[in-house]
Amino acid sequence: MIKKNDAITARKVDFSRWYTDLCLKAELMDYSSVKGFIIYRPYGYAIWENIQKYLDDEFKKTGHQNVYMPLLIPESLLKKEADHVLGFAPECAVVTKGGYENLEENLLIRPTSETLFCEHYAKVVKSYRDLPKKYNQWCSVVRWEKTTRPFLRGSEFLWQEGHTIHETEKEARKETLDMLEIYKNMAKDLLAIPMITGKKTEKEKFAGAIETYTMESLMQDGKVLQSGTSHYFGQGFAKAFNISFLDKENKQQYVYQTSWGASTRLIGATIMVHSDDNGLILPPKVAPIQVIIIPIKQEDDEVIKKTNQVKLALEKEGIRVSIDTSIKSPGFKFNEAEMKGIPLRIEIGPKDILNNKCVVVKRFDYQKKELPLNENLASEVSNLLDDIQDKMYQKAKDNLDSHIYEASSLDDLENKLKLGGFVKVAWCGDLKCEEEIKDKYQATTRCLCEDKKSKCICCGKKTTTQVYIGKAY
Amino acid sequence: MIKKNDAITARKVDFSRWYTDLCLKAELMDYSSVKGFIIYRPYGYAIWENIQKYLDDEFKKTGHQNVYMPLLIPESLLKKEADHVLGFAPECAVVTKGGYENLEENLLIRPTSETLFCEHYAKVVKSYRDLPKKYNQWCSVVRWEKTTRPFLRGSEFLWQEGHTIHETEKEARKETLDMLEIYKNMAKDLLAIPMITGKKTEKEKFAGAIETYTMESLMQDGKVLQSGTSHYFGQGFAKAFNISFLDKENKQQYVYQTSWGASTRLIGATIMVHSDDNGLILPPKVAPIQVIIIPIKQEDDEVIKKTNQVKLALEKEGIRVSIDTSIKSPGFKFNEAEMKGIPLRIEIGPKDILNNKCVVVKRFDYQKKELPLNENLASEVSNLLDDIQDKMYQKAKDNLDSHIYEASSLDDLENKLKLGGFVKVAWCGDLKCEEEIKDKYQATTRCLCEDKKSKCICCGKKTTTQVYIGKAY
Repeated sequence: MIKKNDAITARKVDFSRWYTDLCLKAELMDYSSVKGFIIYRPYGYAIWENIQKYLDDEFKKTGHQNVYMPLLIPESLLKKEADHVLGFAPECAVVTKGGYENLEENLLIRPTSETLFCEHYAKVVKSYRDLPKKYNQWCSVVRWEKTTRPFLRGSEFLWQEGHTIHETEKEARKETLDMLEIYKNMAKDLLAIPMITGKKTEKEKFAGAIETYTMESLMQDGKVLQSGTSHYFGQGFAKAFNISFLDKENKQQYVYQTSWGASTRLIGATIMVHSDDNGLILPPKVAPIQVIIIPIKQEDDEVIKKTNQVKLALEKEGIRVSIDTSIKSPGFKFNEAEMKGIPLRIEIGPKDILNNKCVVVKRFDYQKKELPLNENLASEVSNLLDDIQDKMYQKAKDNLDSHIYEASSLDDLENKLKLGGFVKVAWCGDLKCEEEIKDKYQATTRCLCEDKKSKCICCGKKTTTQVYIGKAY
Repeated sequence: MIKKNDAITARKVDFSRWYTDLCLKAELMDYSSVKGFIIYRPYGYAIWENIQKYLDDEFKKTGHQNVYMPLLIPESLLKKEADHVLGFAPECAVVTKGGYENLEENLLIRPTSETLFCEHYAKVVKSYRDLPKKYNQWCSVVRWEKTTRPFLRGSEFLWQEGHTIHETEKEARKETLDMLEIYKNMAKDLLAIPMITGKKTEKEKFAGAIETYTMESLMQDGKVLQSGTSHYFGQGFAKAFNISFLDKENKQQYVYQTSWGASTRLIGATIMVHSDDNGLILPPKVAPIQVIIIPIKQEDDEVIKKTNQVKLALEKEGIRVSIDTSIKSPGFKFNEAEMKGIPLRIEIGPKDILNNKCVVVKRFDYQKKELPLNENLASEVSNLLDDIQDKMYQKAKDNLDSHIYEASSLDDLENKLKLGGFVKVAWCGDLKCEEEIKDKYQATTRCLCEDKKSKCICCGKKTTTQVYIGKAY
């Protein structure tokens, strides 16, 4: 691969600059005049719409319903669950005035909406017949952040938050894991990203949860990214908010609760897993434009006629396709299509029409091939897109698999962490050891993995707990 | 129609209570603990999703792209356009703290996003080749309101706001009217609501606009409701925010701009135009559930088998259908289906199966008929739904047409206003007369209508301007 595009920094030179250059130059986002608040430009937002569509369909298929809760939370409401307020109060944006008047009680812009769902559930649930309630909401949330980075960490981000309540622990625990599975499948099927999934440690779990499950992905620079979480709350919030119901035996019970969320951070993951020094590389399933047709000699009526024919044929096959007829040179258009990560580019010129073929170039591996301009073109292009999707996943999976290490001592951990990726270590389960590792190596526990008899690499205590460690965004 | 449902106040007793009773009992919304901020419950939100889907498709078909702008606006940015800040500053919720620290500059929760779009457009537009930009955003906005009412006026509401910039005045003016037309068609096709459209007076136009176009609908109590607006801005914002471009002759020009919005207020309009004392009546096109099947003797396996068969057959026809198998009496289920405004109810019991027919009841006019349980059922039901949609529009149209009056004097106006609806009067165009009418009759100009030589009903001055007056929500 030759770097043709000077607009963005090379990954080797500065991965972090490469990333922000790409976000800007591919026109995914722009900065606004409020620090940490970004503008989702049409091309970036269209990726989010494709993620939304996939997830929304899955949520509805599994019996979830969308709702919309208020943007603002009274300070007193956030304080009802003790752990929850400790976790979120320091990050809240505070509304103190409305229409020139000072408010009697401060209102917080939602950093997450557990408390609002709880208050509503407490009001509407009376009997086991009202259960389960499986609600989801698409919205933005605000968390005041000091250091921000497009899509990865922002003072405002877009997400969905699911909040469900159930009659039994078993059902709620199943929901928690089912939703994690939906996220993981989405990452694979849509974003071509393999995920490591597992339970967070006590230290890393969500404020107010009994258990937090996470999916974690590996970026090209070796850093790892928390990409979606699903929480089991037990009856903690239910007791704090008095969400109770009469069960089949006419006894008053508290509900069992879950919440789960995935955000525009997934756009960041997609960029950092797949793209290269010439720009974005999008998996076909999530790409807003899957095929771009570039006419060579667009002043030729025959060329325009043929490109339109091809576009229609591809659209009939359900492919998202566009023609670039802007007044620019083909070379310029090629670069632009590469910057935007469009999976396939089709070139059609007068010579191609004479020879009844077109040139097809894959963004993913720059491979060129000729395809006949006949009635099979659309299905061949469709197969090519499927093939690209599979290969992109396989490449990302190979990269992940080759960056999962084991370490049996702290020195070993330090060395493996330098290689980037996930390092599996034995850990006693104590916060002290977890914090020591974090302080020493700026690496955190990502999630627990399968049990195995061993000794904690930090304190040497006997343990069966294994945990993945990584340097995270 | 017999009033069977005591859960809601009758319209004649108290229209306003009828409305809020219905919003709550049909489970469209609930109140939250912050005044003026409502919870959109699943059934209410599903109506909004259907409106979103219709509009979003139309926007995309006409070349618009979705984006997402920040939630917060720096106070200084809102102040850039003089009229705009006067209109919106008094309604803003103000964020003064972020993460425990006082902010250097206050941030306003967006009451509308003109200023954010302008700032972005100024940054990204350089040449006529970058035009037009036709962006839309789905979001919630906050406007601090003293008196609030579900869906009609809230401190937070959901909406879409389109913001476009163009090379020429002609193109921008066309966009303004095209979008009004899309709104009007949506109201007719989806919500079965006829609209009166026209230009707002200087007094009633949007803060910062040169012209505001509106669509206005008539509620059953004779009050009128502004249901969607489209604004032509000329170059006002462009000059305040310096949105300029090099034209084809290489000269620097300012863009011409529009914005347009429709909100969850449309849910309120749909309720108040169509519903009755037994609950909601939803037009089939926008109804989350179009057909509810109620099994009579659901302990009978044959009944359950048959209802499932019918459900599948209707779903194949693209009908949104559900079966009510809850442990309640059929009578109770009928009431519930009526409360929720489900357009068609199908009853299937053992006797019906023996006779190979089912009972179909229309929510709209309570008419009952029997349909054979054969392979034509789905298409017959589909036709029935289309017919209901048409009839509901026609009924609303007849009501509107019979409530458009003309008045030639102030006394005449006063009497006509008592009948409810729109009163057409001659008006000199002066603010003084407009305000006098408002003060005297608590009625406002809704929009201008066709020109006609006459004399202002207030001051007697010669004029060709005619305007609709109505008592509005």
